[in-house]
Amino acid sequence: MGYSKPFQKSEYEQRIKAVKQRMGAAGFELLICQDPANMGWLTGFDGWSFYTPQAVLVHLEEASPIWFGRAQDAKSAHFTTDLPAENIVGFSEPLVHHPDKHPFDELSELVTARGWDTAQIGVELDAHYYTARAHQHIIKGLPNATISDNHEIVNWARLVKSEAELVYMHEAGRIVTDTMNKALSRLRPGVRQFEVIADVYHAQIIGIDSKFGDYTSLCPLIQVGEGTSTPHLTWTDEPLPASGLIVMEIGAARRHYHAPLTRTAHIGRPPDEVVRLSEVIIEGGDMALSAAKPGVTCEEVESVWQKVLNRHGYKKESRVGYSIGLNYPPDWGERTASLRPGDQTELQAGMCFHFQSGMWLDDYGAAISEPFVVTENGGERLSDVRRELIVIN
Amino acid sequence: MGYSKPFQKSEYEQRIKAVKQRMGAAGFELLICQDPANMGWLTGFDGWSFYTPQAVLVHLEEASPIWFGRAQDAKSAHFTTDLPAENIVGFSEPLVHHPDKHPFDELSELVTARGWDTAQIGVELDAHYYTARAHQHIIKGLPNATISDNHEIVNWARLVKSEAELVYMHEAGRIVTDTMNKALSRLRPGVRQFEVIADVYHAQIIGIDSKFGDYTSLCPLIQVGEGTSTPHLTWTDEPLPASGLIVMEIGAARRHYHAPLTRTAHIGRPPDEVVRLSEVIIEGGDMALSAAKPGVTCEEVESVWQKVLNRHGYKKESRVGYSIGLNYPPDWGERTASLRPGDQTELQAGMCFHFQSGMWLDDYGAAISEPFVVTENGGERLSDVRRELIVIN
Repeated sequence: MGYSKPFQKSEYEQRIKAVKQRMGAAGFELLICQDPANMGWLTGFDGWSFYTPQAVLVHLEEASPIWFGRAQDAKSAHFTTDLPAENIVGFSEPLVHHPDKHPFDELSELVTARGWDTAQIGVELDAHYYTARAHQHIIKGLPNATISDNHEIVNWARLVKSEAELVYMHEAGRIVTDTMNKALSRLRPGVRQFEVIADVYHAQIIGIDSKFGDYTSLCPLIQVGEGTSTPHLTWTDEPLPASGLIVMEIGAARRHYHAPLTRTAHIGRPPDEVVRLSEVIIEGGDMALSAAKPGVTCEEVESVWQKVLNRHGYKKESRVGYSIGLNYPPDWGERTASLRPGDQTELQAGMCFHFQSGMWLDDYGAAISEPFVVTENGGERLSDVRRELIVIN
Repeated sequence: MGYSKPFQKSEYEQRIKAVKQRMGAAGFELLICQDPANMGWLTGFDGWSFYTPQAVLVHLEEASPIWFGRAQDAKSAHFTTDLPAENIVGFSEPLVHHPDKHPFDELSELVTARGWDTAQIGVELDAHYYTARAHQHIIKGLPNATISDNHEIVNWARLVKSEAELVYMHEAGRIVTDTMNKALSRLRPGVRQFEVIADVYHAQIIGIDSKFGDYTSLCPLIQVGEGTSTPHLTWTDEPLPASGLIVMEIGAARRHYHAPLTRTAHIGRPPDEVVRLSEVIIEGGDMALSAAKPGVTCEEVESVWQKVLNRHGYKKESRVGYSIGLNYPPDWGERTASLRPGDQTELQAGMCFHFQSGMWLDDYGAAISEPFVVTENGGERLSDVRRELIVIN
């Protein structure tokens, strides 16, 4: 079988050990993790099955995690993880989209059968796929347990990347460099937006040097003209204009580790206001990345950026960055540390962020961002696309 | 601006009217819809912003829906919908990933400000992005309301497609035909899996006759050899073998309307057991599609299929199909009608299904599926890829 695991078994053992330490400190005996990134990070499990209820369980006294999911996907768990066969448990098919029953009824039975029904259980109350209904079935199915939000306990354990993870982060950075450069090379008047995006997808997957890319947690984003005033629009069939502004946000994923990147281009001579905004974004980003050293807090990094903006008469309301790493749709952010006021997380070497310096003003916007890893010398860029307003003549 | 709306305003008005009728019958005064497909179907709203909390509200006595989401995405709502400006409401940026506060605190304030805080409110308890935490904040923010599961009330309203929607379903079918044929043409010994998938992505987006494709709700899936025994594995860098089995599940989306399709190929002479399984799948599917006429129930269609299987000594535990249409990641199923025992939904002309006849056995599997629309003559295929085990010599 060609399902080569992305990491050594020892890497997963190290992760489980670290998570158990956090569980002990937080008073949890059992974690129920539904976030696909947490499931993958803890076990290696991989497959597009996160649209049905599934979970990885971690119990303080159980050596290996337990995978729980749809019976037809259990084989994927056998292929992609090193979990012992008895720790891979499929639920009954009729429970899929059943009006009254829910797969987590059987998850509760599994927890009970293991003797953990009175445990202190931490669930991922705000994970994208942990629905209100899923939670109700767990609450009902485990009436004697103490169930509470684990406050992204595994996500936080993912924050500092290992050497092995950083290899993938750098490879993702190289793929996104190649992908963004290809996209920029396609920007010409009359080329239709979807033609650019089709090439972007191809480049994302082909990767570099036979290192293929995975699907990214967000689709490629492109905004043109007034559309640049908002960040999450997708492609249309409009031809690119003879003169106008284009913002693209594109990621690349290597074994599901993400490097996202934004660039701003102008076909024809850019207006002064766009040139000025771009210069400020670049200056602010450069200063902030220089400051992003171990021991500095997230809010201090943001403050360096915001001061540059303010000096030039700008202000950014939204956070200027967020932690990145292993992820699955719909988001490549880790939902932990953010570069924004109030976040006092201290940077450590090996943390990775997307410095998302996008500015969305009333009628236009610009974004020239960088994925970076924290090092003793400051934020080291993971990608290498020319850091300027790209002017296309 | 190039954000051409996929439908006339009258189409959305018709949808709102139909949903309000269902609300009245079910006793709801207000719906809070977070499912991106429901948000898009009700208003036209489009953008990859569903990784943060957002919703469309429908109140019985309010002419237009209300869009609620992140401030930076409100502009997308202005671009992609016809909602009046006062019905587009952005939430404060610091609420993003805040440890204590949640955007739905402000949603609750909005509901209260509109005088709906004692309403009968239907929420989407099992929508993918409606997290347990989001629900807790709504419950807490609206203590005088009666809040309950709306049991996919909007999803059910989406079940029968309008003529305008069927145009997109047929276009999606044509794109998936082209995409699958390209993928099949790439299957040769030594071609690596990701090379096939890169071309698949390109074809999905380029579309046909200048009709571009959108991102699909599931990524392209490919399984090879023993991997065919499970459905949701994704690509690797393994070269295709000199002889072996390949199953692909690929979708195409036109204005977010989906046509999914699976095909099974064998490089070299296929084993008898694979030939036999494929023939049974095709026979069962043909019989079931012929039976899929208005008035027939979902379980009756499944029964036609299952009987063919049983006659040949096979059995399929999982449902053999599910309704399809407008959708967003992570699933292109509508979470309503399924072709399986117990589902007594009566087919109507204009309903669309993916007849997912995949069989995943112990060591191998096969899938030869069809997206179809219910017509007076039975299930009409939306795509047109040769319906056989594809043998590659």
